[in-house]
Amino acid sequence: MNFIHGLQTISLKNKSLVCVGLDSDMKRIPDCILSDAHPQFAFNKAIIDATHDLVCAYKLNSAFYEAQGAKGIQELKMTCDYLREKYPNIPIILDAKRGDIGSTNHGYEVFAFDYLGVDAITLHPYLGREALQPFLDRKDKGCIILCKTSNSGSGEFQDLTVDDKPMYQIVAERVFKDWNTNANCMLVVGATYPEELMAVRQIVGDMTLLIPGVGTQGADIEKTVRAGVNSKGAGMIINSSRHIIFAGHNGDFAQKAREEAERVRNAINTYRTV
Amino acid sequence: MNFIHGLQTISLKNKSLVCVGLDSDMKRIPDCILSDAHPQFAFNKAIIDATHDLVCAYKLNSAFYEAQGAKGIQELKMTCDYLREKYPNIPIILDAKRGDIGSTNHGYEVFAFDYLGVDAITLHPYLGREALQPFLDRKDKGCIILCKTSNSGSGEFQDLTVDDKPMYQIVAERVFKDWNTNANCMLVVGATYPEELMAVRQIVGDMTLLIPGVGTQGADIEKTVRAGVNSKGAGMIINSSRHIIFAGHNGDFAQKAREEAERVRNAINTYRTV
Repeated sequence: MNFIHGLQTISLKNKSLVCVGLDSDMKRIPDCILSDAHPQFAFNKAIIDATHDLVCAYKLNSAFYEAQGAKGIQELKMTCDYLREKYPNIPIILDAKRGDIGSTNHGYEVFAFDYLGVDAITLHPYLGREALQPFLDRKDKGCIILCKTSNSGSGEFQDLTVDDKPMYQIVAERVFKDWNTNANCMLVVGATYPEELMAVRQIVGDMTLLIPGVGTQGADIEKTVRAGVNSKGAGMIINSSRHIIFAGHNGDFAQKAREEAERVRNAINTYRTV
Repeated sequence: MNFIHGLQTISLKNKSLVCVGLDSDMKRIPDCILSDAHPQFAFNKAIIDATHDLVCAYKLNSAFYEAQGAKGIQELKMTCDYLREKYPNIPIILDAKRGDIGSTNHGYEVFAFDYLGVDAITLHPYLGREALQPFLDRKDKGCIILCKTSNSGSGEFQDLTVDDKPMYQIVAERVFKDWNTNANCMLVVGATYPEELMAVRQIVGDMTLLIPGVGTQGADIEKTVRAGVNSKGAGMIINSSRHIIFAGHNGDFAQKAREEAERVRNAINTYRTV
């Protein structure tokens, strides 16, 4: 799958800009799943089966699987294998926030794109384009660069002024103008910062943005969509993780996740204008 | 083990500022090891046994293990377990270059400090202190923040001017003045940039610096030591990975690694002045 093309296709089919984040924290998985031999995978499978017709992508945050060690990595792979086999048209994002020197990034590239077989990965910009080239060279894979992150303290470096502009805008400009030669780059901009989201949209044209922060982090969906939508009424992957996957706590958790995913999808679509 | 204290103790005992980087790339492990059921671990064990009296730390870069999936993570853990059991006085650094929002960093923190049981981790600064707090709060563990990285393109963002200073110096100032309340912070500065290394040393007093780049990346040991040493003739973890561990290609690879580690240790000590 070419990530960008696959994303656009499924987004149209499912009428959705919602990405469900499978942040399957073992401390929050319902008790009824914990006795399964592979609880993170079993939980993910149930959530995926309940929401696959409502999403434009799934995002797996590596941290929640690494916390379980080798077993967690195995369940992360089982989830990716299941998605690719049963729902091959839904792109998978590995939210790993990696970034090392070039020769080392090859190891991460193999982990994400070959071992797990995901379609896109999130990356830190701090080491520059030259270091990230092994990722950028994978033409069919999405490279989603951190730009303005959703956390309350993201301004410490991202808002520092460089050439009369905040640093995050410099990152947006570089990625848009210099890094995107394979048309496979995107940016992460937190929904918790709608003004900054609007500023990034003005810099990057119709480039797709990965936007976390509308769920537990509390960002407003209307403001997010109005600030982030591109000229085609799309260009956004709006992620919600905990607020969807942990909407229920009992045997009906998958149904509750579906209801919340549908609510978020419909709320987003209310404010999309083409 | 308290990382900083453990580092100083073993550094004095072994008269060494050398960190051996166990970048145990499966493509470069000697053929005689590849038939082992756990080749990355078997390779590491041989290198560790041959060099343990010459080092101040071992650094494991997560990428080379992740490239092998769950099996690689298992061998990474086997290596950490072996080190803690057989050489409990040698600190272990996980070179993972992580950095997510706070609630997610908890997963990485558990992976590094509880599952693997390492003593320090490398971190990206881009999300700011508030995001990295779960790491900083682990008083006995080392938090090694990327400052000026060794790669040729590191200047793209790190050298941008903020308040008349390059960005990497702003990172150094913040970490030194604001982040280090538990006295567990350090910085990564590449040996490939001796002038920048000297500038960072002037900002951070006697703070310990992790310095890659003297091996395959080609930095000069004399320039590195003269630029990076602190007022006590130390304050540096000088890492060499490939140049030491792949010094030999046959059955004598561990002995060749020892010879190269000893050469680097002695070369560094030639230029240390107190």
